[in-house]
Amino acid sequence: MAKKVRVGILNVTGYAGLELARLLYQHPHVKLAAVTGRSEAGKPLGSVFPTLDDLGLTITDDVPRSAGVDFIFSALPHKASAEALLPFLRQGLRAVDISADFRLRDAAEYQQWYGVVHPAPEMLKESAYGLTELNKEAIRRAQVIANPGCYPTSAILALAPALKKGLIEPDIIVDSKSGVSGAGRGLSLGAHFSEVNETVSAYSLEGHRHLPEITQELRRLTPGAKLRVTFVPHLIPMTRGILSTCYAPLVEGRLALASAQGELAAVYREFYRDEPFVRVVSAPPQTKHTVGSNYCVIYPTVDQRSGRLVVISCLDNLVKGAAGQAIQNMNVMLGFEETAGLLGLGLWP
Amino acid sequence: MAKKVRVGILNVTGYAGLELARLLYQHPHVKLAAVTGRSEAGKPLGSVFPTLDDLGLTITDDVPRSAGVDFIFSALPHKASAEALLPFLRQGLRAVDISADFRLRDAAEYQQWYGVVHPAPEMLKESAYGLTELNKEAIRRAQVIANPGCYPTSAILALAPALKKGLIEPDIIVDSKSGVSGAGRGLSLGAHFSEVNETVSAYSLEGHRHLPEITQELRRLTPGAKLRVTFVPHLIPMTRGILSTCYAPLVEGRLALASAQGELAAVYREFYRDEPFVRVVSAPPQTKHTVGSNYCVIYPTVDQRSGRLVVISCLDNLVKGAAGQAIQNMNVMLGFEETAGLLGLGLWP
Amino acid sequence: MAKKVRVGILNVTGYAGLELARLLYQHPHVKLAAVTGRSEAGKPLGSVFPTLDDLGLTITDDVPRSAGVDFIFSALPHKASAEALLPFLRQGLRAVDISADFRLRDAAEYQQWYGVVHPAPEMLKESAYGLTELNKEAIRRAQVIANPGCYPTSAILALAPALKKGLIEPDIIVDSKSGVSGAGRGLSLGAHFSEVNETVSAYSLEGHRHLPEITQELRRLTPGAKLRVTFVPHLIPMTRGILSTCYAPLVEGRLALASAQGELAAVYREFYRDEPFVRVVSAPPQTKHTVGSNYCVIYPTVDQRSGRLVVISCLDNLVKGAAGQAIQNMNVMLGFEETAGLLGLGLWP
Amino acid sequence: MAKKVRVGILNVTGYAGLELARLLYQHPHVKLAAVTGRSEAGKPLGSVFPTLDDLGLTITDDVPRSAGVDFIFSALPHKASAEALLPFLRQGLRAVDISADFRLRDAAEYQQWYGVVHPAPEMLKESAYGLTELNKEAIRRAQVIANPGCYPTSAILALAPALKKGLIEPDIIVDSKSGVSGAGRGLSLGAHFSEVNETVSAYSLEGHRHLPEITQELRRLTPGAKLRVTFVPHLIPMTRGILSTCYAPLVEGRLALASAQGELAAVYREFYRDEPFVRVVSAPPQTKHTVGSNYCVIYPTVDQRSGRLVVISCLDNLVKGAAGQAIQNMNVMLGFEETAGLLGLGLWP
Repeated sequence: MAKKVRVGILNVTGYAGLELARLLYQHPHVKLAAVTGRSEAGKPLGSVFPTLDDLGLTITDDVPRSAGVDFIFSALPHKASAEALLPFLRQGLRAVDISADFRLRDAAEYQQWYGVVHPAPEMLKESAYGLTELNKEAIRRAQVIANPGCYPTSAILALAPALKKGLIEPDIIVDSKSGVSGAGRGLSLGAHFSEVNETVSAYSLEGHRHLPEITQELRRLTPGAKLRVTFVPHLIPMTRGILSTCYAPLVEGRLALASAQGELAAVYREFYRDEPFVRVVSAPPQTKHTVGSNYCVIYPTVDQRSGRLVVISCLDNLVKGAAGQAIQNMNVMLGFEETAGLLGLGLWP
Repeated sequence: MAKKVRVGILNVTGYAGLELARLLYQHPHVKLAAVTGRSEAGKPLGSVFPTLDDLGLTITDDVPRSAGVDFIFSALPHKASAEALLPFLRQGLRAVDISADFRLRDAAEYQQWYGVVHPAPEMLKESAYGLTELNKEAIRRAQVIANPGCYPTSAILALAPALKKGLIEPDIIVDSKSGVSGAGRGLSLGAHFSEVNETVSAYSLEGHRHLPEITQELRRLTPGAKLRVTFVPHLIPMTRGILSTCYAPLVEGRLALASAQGELAAVYREFYRDEPFVRVVSAPPQTKHTVGSNYCVIYPTVDQRSGRLVVISCLDNLVKGAAGQAIQNMNVMLGFEETAGLLGLGLWP
Repeated sequence: MAKKVRVGILNVTGYAGLELARLLYQHPHVKLAAVTGRSEAGKPLGSVFPTLDDLGLTITDDVPRSAGVDFIFSALPHKASAEALLPFLRQGLRAVDISADFRLRDAAEYQQWYGVVHPAPEMLKESAYGLTELNKEAIRRAQVIANPGCYPTSAILALAPALKKGLIEPDIIVDSKSGVSGAGRGLSLGAHFSEVNETVSAYSLEGHRHLPEITQELRRLTPGAKLRVTFVPHLIPMTRGILSTCYAPLVEGRLALASAQGELAAVYREFYRDEPFVRVVSAPPQTKHTVGSNYCVIYPTVDQRSGRLVVISCLDNLVKGAAGQAIQNMNVMLGFEETAGLLGLGLWP
Repeated sequence: MAKKVRVGILNVTGYAGLELARLLYQHPHVKLAAVTGRSEAGKPLGSVFPTLDDLGLTITDDVPRSAGVDFIFSALPHKASAEALLPFLRQGLRAVDISADFRLRDAAEYQQWYGVVHPAPEMLKESAYGLTELNKEAIRRAQVIANPGCYPTSAILALAPALKKGLIEPDIIVDSKSGVSGAGRGLSLGAHFSEVNETVSAYSLEGHRHLPEITQELRRLTPGAKLRVTFVPHLIPMTRGILSTCYAPLVEGRLALASAQGELAAVYREFYRDEPFVRVVSAPPQTKHTVGSNYCVIYPTVDQRSGRLVVISCLDNLVKGAAGQAIQNMNVMLGFEETAGLLGLGLWP
């Protein structure tokens, strides 16, 4: 057996970091060698997160030199993430950044949406957007991967085949429903149990930070089109999962309405034929079909009455929407089989 | 104090019937005199539903003559409802029907969507669609009220001002999120706790029975327009509540984009100025703002980037979406203050 | 109609304060005249808590003189509560204190459990423990009522009849299960949605502050007995409700085992015969039978195999466990009917 | 690599069967070769349970001869299970039975609690009770393993060290809290979302079928003692997990009260020193520490005030409480490492 790659996780104490550790424990080619987390530094990982006790690690302030890490995952918040990654990148290490720092190609747009000057604009050209299914060649070569946001992953995978094949007008609505873990482990009234249990709400109606990311990537699929994208995220009372319902008018004449459903399914199946983690299904899926697994499950359909495409996509926001896709990207970067460490089935019920 | 009206509830054992009983207990002008429910007939209401014990009633097979009822609510399933109401209507009693039997004006359309011949087409002309805020005059005069569906109530109230004022194109998407109580008290795998907890799904993508109802009523608000309505309901893991997110393109030139938000709010506030149960709010609401109360809370906004109207509306599907609106309709029919028995505040948290 | 009593709520921004406001809105003899809340002072109550919008009040720093209040409810945290109440008490106003400040008769014991010197020991003799059903005469006369803790209310009501009638040994276990709203509105990881959803835990195993309160009151019911009380609270993933399962060995020879169940039920029914808010039931209840209402529902039974009493009691921790019982106490203090303002039925489902 | 053992699952369509399939997918020494389920026979497993699609199996009526199975898991209901297993056992196959059929050593006691004549009393002597940690030698040799109930697993593991070491009086209370998946996939009002969400209830107060199982196994640990066991299960609104709170008086003089906590922890740690799936912890655990994993997490403590042992134990009712322990037992029977296929970490959050 080949020597294992030694990896480090920056900020294991957030939900994405935690999930990385859980998944990497079963990765056949990886040894998790260091986990950082300022607020809990010095404590055994298992005392802070009992589910991770078997890893036998201690949380540290920084990645110690002695850990001998070959590869870095950052699960830090934006800005802090790029800043913490820079020293590793300068040493030539490769990395997957789960934060937003390398997602927008344009540092000015980043500044506009995130309200801070980009901490490492020079690295943007060394980075690739890590929606694995759509960008594999670039991912293979990049030094640092911008792991996509959870909402963009669900929306872009849902729309890519129809957009690329010219089946829809670029007049798109993405209505997403997310579990509360997407809001992270930081305390807020908006994630306080008694305030979010038994309720649903829309938020960020004035513009969510994942909107420019969705638009940027959809534009790459249909260069020149004048995209109109409305994105409305909703918070629903469950822990994990995102379901996105995507709407767009069908281009007239491209699909025969009578057989549109079947033609559409064929287009989607063909598009994702070689992708191990996208499952095109023939009945409406639910987020629970993906809990704990790296799948994105997609159901494309046609509203015959209005001539509209409706696509439902589901994923686990912490796996395909964060840590799982990060590992998938590492697998591609390092030449492992793409599914390594990611074969666990979802939990039902 | 005037003599109380004696009312009966057909099928108290479903969630709408239960909620009617809960609310009527505090109605100042009403005496609940009979509650039917075949499967539990003969049992004290409080033994089947402990929360209703204070009513001191016994469930019966049918409304006994001795109950001396003056007014009927039916919470039976469609078809059974109209059949059970007919004898009362023939005696000249007035009624609110919570089922779908009198909602669609066209008996043929009813047959198409519900798969049965309409059981009382001759009564359609004696009925009125009971979306109280939009149809008060007709409700006052009708013998039987078709209490609207929960989804249509949320969607139509959300869209009515913009549609009536000509602010939007008739190209509409309604994306609704409902708690599980909307599926009723009948057992099904789709309402089995372990299968619906911690998950979200879209359903009835091929066409939900509430679609023709939404379309029919929106059409009355904008006669002649060529409506394209897509309606996708979703099931989310909570008991009560519906949130509908409604999308439509703004008609160009009607609102100045720069001040669209404020103009829109003014239009909505004016439209519902005299309506005690519609609250137009200036921040995104959530369903929990309405739990247990008869409010529909509406937040209209504009997506500046795409020139689209987005309206969020929230209500409790068992109150404004069923039993509460039924009582509101009875109040209008009988000349009571519209809010009688409906002043209880929502529960938070 | 008599002039309404003008009441003020100190700290309307916690869950007990909120619930007081909700319930008082429908109280026939009370006018809510002032609501305080430092962090939100100056804001309309309805902008902070949309469900309370109909009250038409503004949150203030302190109770303004102009409010002309006759009666005070304090929903402040312990220590702050007695301190804030003192000026009102010195003016001769009467009050219900929902905090723990006047619950323990012994200021030294208070200091031991709460870690602070009692802020108003001289007022202890003017106070009464407000478990309404067991202490009505004292409540009528006291100037300030110590509203019981939510757990003690459920435990003491469950055990009082058996203990007082000498049916059980004073060797008691109280195993309680509480919804998360009992932890209040203050942010903590222990009330963060993703951390408490889909999990159950025991806490305060080294001794919960409600233990001395339970012991003190049980001791009054059985003076001289050597009580051994173990109390273990658990947190479960729901918003409202407490279920306490209480265990104690039956005194041999007091109940004929063959008919113990029936005899026990008779003892409990007789004990609470005149109490409008205690319902002794003949089938295991659930917390949802009480949501939003002021009931405590009790099911006493005998484990024949082990000769043990098992009593299940359920209540809504924010109503009978806090705001509802506070109003019940006010009703007794002011000579209103005990049920005034508290007749609303619980929500089901 | 050695040839894989070919196993079959009888009744893959219940939650225990489903979970077996999920876990066996990653077992290094096993090939899942057949899955039965009468109601869904003929359908691809992945069409009925999308999370199991990767297994690539079709549900059959019976285990086909062509499947060449070497080992059987039965997840059928009691009675049906033993009946279905008999033919395999007669052919000499070994099996783990997740039903209750071989749990009680005494066929008469079985008949008393389950209301049916034991379907295979002659096999009782070929069976062993599969609480793996306490019965490994017998499990190794038995032909059929009675996989323990979920509640008994949590209760017996929690009490075994204290009972065996003579630290407690045999006067025991087990107060258990279970998620709803324990009630299975069969429809009932008691598992209907809107009826069990946001509520907690006690059930089977007259005697749960898991009581004789708990008593039988505790008696084996302390032969001759006169056990008094009270067991009260509760249903709480979550999908997976059981937490049992166990109470018993300490035998006087065995533990020095001042250092009881530490001595107790040492006894428990020593008792489970070599057991990979029991984790003795030093802070109160929660069920979510075990979701998806085969761990039973145990926290023993002493209530100093009453001189009582209190032990909290947590597990995932579908894993250590059913399918996981079944695989653990198979591993022991077949001489695999005990942890094979069971190394996945629990999900958090």
